[in-house]
Amino acid sequence: VTSEPMTDSAVPRPVATPKQLGVGMRFSLHPHCDRFVDVIEGALKEVTATGLADGLVISTDDVSTYVGAATEPAEQRLTSYVVAAVCAASSRSGGGHVVAHVLFSRGCPGEVSCDLAVTGLPAVAPVEVQLTGLRAVAQWSLYPLLDANPDDGSDAGAHMTHIEAAIAEARGRGTAAEPAHYATRLEGDVAEVLATAVDAWAKVGAVVPHVVTHLTVSVGSPSMVAS
Amino acid sequence: VTSEPMTDSAVPRPVATPKQLGVGMRFSLHPHCDRFVDVIEGALKEVTATGLADGLVISTDDVSTYVGAATEPAEQRLTSYVVAAVCAASSRSGGGHVVAHVLFSRGCPGEVSCDLAVTGLPAVAPVEVQLTGLRAVAQWSLYPLLDANPDDGSDAGAHMTHIEAAIAEARGRGTAAEPAHYATRLEGDVAEVLATAVDAWAKVGAVVPHVVTHLTVSVGSPSMVAS
Repeated sequence: VTSEPMTDSAVPRPVATPKQLGVGMRFSLHPHCDRFVDVIEGALKEVTATGLADGLVISTDDVSTYVGAATEPAEQRLTSYVVAAVCAASSRSGGGHVVAHVLFSRGCPGEVSCDLAVTGLPAVAPVEVQLTGLRAVAQWSLYPLLDANPDDGSDAGAHMTHIEAAIAEARGRGTAAEPAHYATRLEGDVAEVLATAVDAWAKVGAVVPHVVTHLTVSVGSPSMVAS
Repeated sequence: VTSEPMTDSAVPRPVATPKQLGVGMRFSLHPHCDRFVDVIEGALKEVTATGLADGLVISTDDVSTYVGAATEPAEQRLTSYVVAAVCAASSRSGGGHVVAHVLFSRGCPGEVSCDLAVTGLPAVAPVEVQLTGLRAVAQWSLYPLLDANPDDGSDAGAHMTHIEAAIAEARGRGTAAEPAHYATRLEGDVAEVLATAVDAWAKVGAVVPHVVTHLTVSVGSPSMVAS
């Protein structure tokens, strides 16, 4: 114990909470079948019934479902929820073709509010997922949106460095396949594919305040290329 | 005519071509019906047969279709193509529920190549679209990725300024409805909805080298909110 007063620079910046950062996702489920309404509604209800919606703020409109993660572990809750939703939709469509489009966002709670005053960014542990047995292919893009240090403008243009590091990590994990225009192809168990994107997004979020990632995840496609 | 030599600073920077900027899109069509393979393949073939694929580089894989616009007018070609593809898919599904997910990108030709040396950015005229009679709702996000001036690091954090201006412009056009988490809701004729996103993306692209925009566009949804 010391009685010396802490200098200003020694005071740790408070780490932003998931709620302050607006950690959440927006996703849409697309069962390619005539019974799509039953499949979507049934899948969302099923996931809620399992308790995976607990701690999340969920709101479905006519285009997609918003899921806000106001409480820790935010990234884990989001991942478990969306993996379960895709699996439930796949199962309810009899293993048919289902596509999910998922947007994960942090650092911009509203439509246009981007609070640059939040500078204590959390280091998030990788999410833990159980393999589902459901194989997916995806096209994934990562967008670090505030790539310059707001204090001094340094690191301008560093967003590509973050993206390259994220892709290298996904290659190491075994989910990243070949590059494509505007996206990286991911392949593997749907839980691993989604966790790859979540972990990369959260990792960049430890150094960049505003980060968004988009994935188009496909399961059960008749044209899925065998790997 | 003057015989005076031009100073270096008077030499205009060459304006980047669509090919140098990697202007293009990646989109997926999701007909929510059992006949989805016929609908997608038929729609893409139909659009090609009309000549709208001329001047574009098109490649379809098991997740989405890449469309590169190497020749002028690049944005107009992309818009006409994707509007026609959504309309063809809607028509072929008997006016059923079809969702298109569309990513427009400029400034990053490859997966991770982002050529910052390209500094002469083109001013693109708004695209011209004909109304289709097909009503759409969409959720739209705009990502200016290089928001700091690479020369001096100025304007760090300006990406929200560009986004706010784009949303204000969409409001003036009448397509932007209310804000949502992580997205802006657009409503109107599908051609106007897509043109709103394209024009905003190209406009930001006149000052920011690397800009991406994503839209989830829905037509024929049984849960579409009446406006």
